[in-house]
Amino acid sequence: MKILFLGDVVGNVGIQVIRDYLSVAKDKYQPNLIIANGENAAINGKGITKKAAMSLYDLGIDILTMGNHVWDQNEIYDLFVSHPNRIIRPANYPKSSPGQSYVTIKCGVKNVTIINISGQTFMDSLNCPFHAIDEILEQIPKDHYVVVDFHAEATSEKLAMGHYLTGRVTAVLGTHTHVQTSDAQILNKQTAYITDVGMVGCSSGVLGMSQDSVIKRFTTKLPVKLEIIQNTDSWQFSAVLIETESNSIKAKSIHQILERS
Amino acid sequence: MKILFLGDVVGNVGIQVIRDYLSVAKDKYQPNLIIANGENAAINGKGITKKAAMSLYDLGIDILTMGNHVWDQNEIYDLFVSHPNRIIRPANYPKSSPGQSYVTIKCGVKNVTIINISGQTFMDSLNCPFHAIDEILEQIPKDHYVVVDFHAEATSEKLAMGHYLTGRVTAVLGTHTHVQTSDAQILNKQTAYITDVGMVGCSSGVLGMSQDSVIKRFTTKLPVKLEIIQNTDSWQFSAVLIETESNSIKAKSIHQILERS
Amino acid sequence: MKILFLGDVVGNVGIQVIRDYLSVAKDKYQPNLIIANGENAAINGKGITKKAAMSLYDLGIDILTMGNHVWDQNEIYDLFVSHPNRIIRPANYPKSSPGQSYVTIKCGVKNVTIINISGQTFMDSLNCPFHAIDEILEQIPKDHYVVVDFHAEATSEKLAMGHYLTGRVTAVLGTHTHVQTSDAQILNKQTAYITDVGMVGCSSGVLGMSQDSVIKRFTTKLPVKLEIIQNTDSWQFSAVLIETESNSIKAKSIHQILERS
Amino acid sequence: MKILFLGDVVGNVGIQVIRDYLSVAKDKYQPNLIIANGENAAINGKGITKKAAMSLYDLGIDILTMGNHVWDQNEIYDLFVSHPNRIIRPANYPKSSPGQSYVTIKCGVKNVTIINISGQTFMDSLNCPFHAIDEILEQIPKDHYVVVDFHAEATSEKLAMGHYLTGRVTAVLGTHTHVQTSDAQILNKQTAYITDVGMVGCSSGVLGMSQDSVIKRFTTKLPVKLEIIQNTDSWQFSAVLIETESNSIKAKSIHQILERS
Ligand SMILES: [Fe+2]
Ligand SMILES: [Fe+2]
Ligand SMILES: [Fe+2]
Ligand SMILES: [Fe+2]
Ligand SMILES: [Fe+2]
Ligand SMILES: [Fe+2]
Ligand SMILES: [Fe+2]
Ligand SMILES: [Fe+2]
Repeated sequence: MKILFLGDVVGNVGIQVIRDYLSVAKDKYQPNLIIANGENAAINGKGITKKAAMSLYDLGIDILTMGNHVWDQNEIYDLFVSHPNRIIRPANYPKSSPGQSYVTIKCGVKNVTIINISGQTFMDSLNCPFHAIDEILEQIPKDHYVVVDFHAEATSEKLAMGHYLTGRVTAVLGTHTHVQTSDAQILNKQTAYITDVGMVGCSSGVLGMSQDSVIKRFTTKLPVKLEIIQNTDSWQFSAVLIETESNSIKAKSIHQILERS
Repeated sequence: MKILFLGDVVGNVGIQVIRDYLSVAKDKYQPNLIIANGENAAINGKGITKKAAMSLYDLGIDILTMGNHVWDQNEIYDLFVSHPNRIIRPANYPKSSPGQSYVTIKCGVKNVTIINISGQTFMDSLNCPFHAIDEILEQIPKDHYVVVDFHAEATSEKLAMGHYLTGRVTAVLGTHTHVQTSDAQILNKQTAYITDVGMVGCSSGVLGMSQDSVIKRFTTKLPVKLEIIQNTDSWQFSAVLIETESNSIKAKSIHQILERS
Repeated sequence: MKILFLGDVVGNVGIQVIRDYLSVAKDKYQPNLIIANGENAAINGKGITKKAAMSLYDLGIDILTMGNHVWDQNEIYDLFVSHPNRIIRPANYPKSSPGQSYVTIKCGVKNVTIINISGQTFMDSLNCPFHAIDEILEQIPKDHYVVVDFHAEATSEKLAMGHYLTGRVTAVLGTHTHVQTSDAQILNKQTAYITDVGMVGCSSGVLGMSQDSVIKRFTTKLPVKLEIIQNTDSWQFSAVLIETESNSIKAKSIHQILERS
Repeated sequence: MKILFLGDVVGNVGIQVIRDYLSVAKDKYQPNLIIANGENAAINGKGITKKAAMSLYDLGIDILTMGNHVWDQNEIYDLFVSHPNRIIRPANYPKSSPGQSYVTIKCGVKNVTIINISGQTFMDSLNCPFHAIDEILEQIPKDHYVVVDFHAEATSEKLAMGHYLTGRVTAVLGTHTHVQTSDAQILNKQTAYITDVGMVGCSSGVLGMSQDSVIKRFTTKLPVKLEIIQNTDSWQFSAVLIETESNSIKAKSIHQILERS
């Protein structure tokens, strides 16, 4: 089985990149399942709207994962009701939070469970992600392929999670920093890992935002409004392709994809 | 001119990797200048010792840059006195701090100034790095090639610095996260940039540290001592090679290097 | 000379408390100068508006100081232009920031300089407050009484500042936490100090905000909108009165004032 | 019933203050139960040693609570084994952590349960304290008096906890900042509350530490070793006395105690 995982999709440009490039990627990589982190898919880059989610589903994304921006748009509450099996939020939010934190999808005769968790280091104050994932893994049949989107800032926490889950899941894929790392690898010949998949969106600017607004904020310390770049001339498509073993939940390979205009 | 820049060299393994691999890299890339971030070169991965610095100089490192671990070893004070022109620390520490924050070296008939600054986001409370670099650039002749080691955590701050300095310096190279990013590029056809060069050291474990100790710390929240890995079987050499224009201070190319055993 | 310093004035309730109680306090304490921290005087508790500032000036506040909320309302830019000598913002923002960070006012034949600085610990990334105040003190005549509003979170940083300035200024008064501390004292028989003056506003709820909204935010981790309490039934007036020596800039006494309905 | 609660006891000086002053306080206030926060009772102010704990028990402290410094001394593990009913650590550490997070003690015919929790804001990454206390309260008989030591930094989080537990516990007492606040009160005529009880230790310096070392750390950003003050000439005893209703678990009164030499 082949699983294509796209990093944080940012704004309209991000959706446009998927519209333009995903069919190419599908032809090339023949994925059986496509997952994308959608926490920045809203038009302003904060959270996700119904319209953005519908576009992404229509374009072929099977499952959307979220992150620290999950609650930025109120429409997320509707999405969790209307599409409970196609969008998830980090598991270490309080148990009473809206939405689910993992979902199982059939891929032919195989089951794939996708789990979303958030880091604690340099992030909002959430419960321990290591214990949160342990709790979920106890509830999942051992023959499920498991893909974990670990939405986190610190490389140490992400690598620690990769090693912590080695042999227990198919893949641990980092998101949130919007910059792809060069370290895709199979940990201990069992679990696919990358520290950050990177971003789908505008490749100029700062993480999909206008560089002028970001620089002004850093240099003046004023609450400058960050403006999302609407220009689709310079784009990037950041993803990983994971190929699984057929007789075990192990990953056979992980391949980094970084297409830029 | 060709400048080879090595990311954070971690512990004895990091020095051994340089001993084993740098001559290969030199043959292959023919650099005129070699810079390395040495903030983790001490045997325990914290700061740098005289012995570690001497080894690195002997092995061909021309200039050492530092970061948040700069003060971890008391021997740094001696090094700043004995080798003032070969080791620098972030410029946005207080002005009265020991050591220099930039240094100029002759490369044939050309001058190259190397500057070290630290990020503010998710880092120790230092002064504004954007203003710190402005102050230094005012003092440097316009015909100097300038290489900036921006030791920082957040991708947004690093990319903002890259764009802020585009056209004003030759290269803005990120360090500190120990994981190489995939985004080496020439910003606006002028300034070489990468979010993080990555680490020189043991490729297994977590950023050069034993994965068991790191995982235990994250899962128990106990002050588990982080143990540096002494095993040289699995190593990585993370660097970038920058080629400069000859008639301007612009970068012509940046090439990512990531060799793993 | 007697100086009355009021802690963070929060919202309409805060202004109403001043309307109701300041005349009583003036009768009782006979201050020659009244200073208030106005960073929460806007109707929603974030920043300050022209209307709020005018009300406070009309009610007898001579000088307004600010804090981390300084830029929350756009009208602050106008206020810095229209009333440059009556409202200040923390000195360790970038030098190019709008507004002044200290101001000198005549009190009879004496000069009093009021300085505003912000902490670094657990606060926005600003420049070093200790160096910022040093720079300002070098520019102020030695016979000026000096009152410092140190807007900071951590008790260690506030106490350190108090000791750092002992003998060099008349008073170091902490603001920002909205809870008055019990430690008003004259450090080394020279400088008046309190870790936090506390809040002028509604005494029920959480720091002037509705307790339900604050609790909901902490327990759900959702971006619950914090609602300011508009109820003036339960109020508090937090201030300190400093009496100065007449033949030196030293403080003779500091008196905590905490009136609650 | 009267409960005397002492804030963070810092170092040898803190223990000496208890030796000198606790008998006076006992005579004056006639407490039935004495609790103290012991997270800084070790000779260097970091964590607690067996010797320090034994001294505090011998001097009449019934129960010791801890905080973020709980694991600073290895002897804590022995103490949790040897005195499981007399020392507790924050409940929102991982469930597998050594030690207990609450303990019940008989006071005549009444039961008093003491609970220790830690804040999340500006503190180490722990699980949600609001959910942690909910879980414990479900296990405690409704007729137990309950005293909560909430070891936290942010005033907003502490006040939110006070309101959250109003009517459900006897007292919510803040610790950690080492500076007593002026806001002791009975919330809604039910629950005794104070944002911070303050420190037992040396009243000069910065929170029990030498002011020179603390100032040097803030101004130089060097890893200056913080030296605990050994001088017992200037001391302070910070505590609160809570008187409970006899026919309910409500608090009748809370009285701030701040004795300084
Ligand atoms: Fe994110
Ligand atoms: Fe994102
Ligand atoms: Fe490093
Ligand atoms: Fe670093
Ligand atoms: Fe405030
Ligand atoms: Fe504030
Ligand atoms: Fe403490
Ligand atoms: Fe503490």
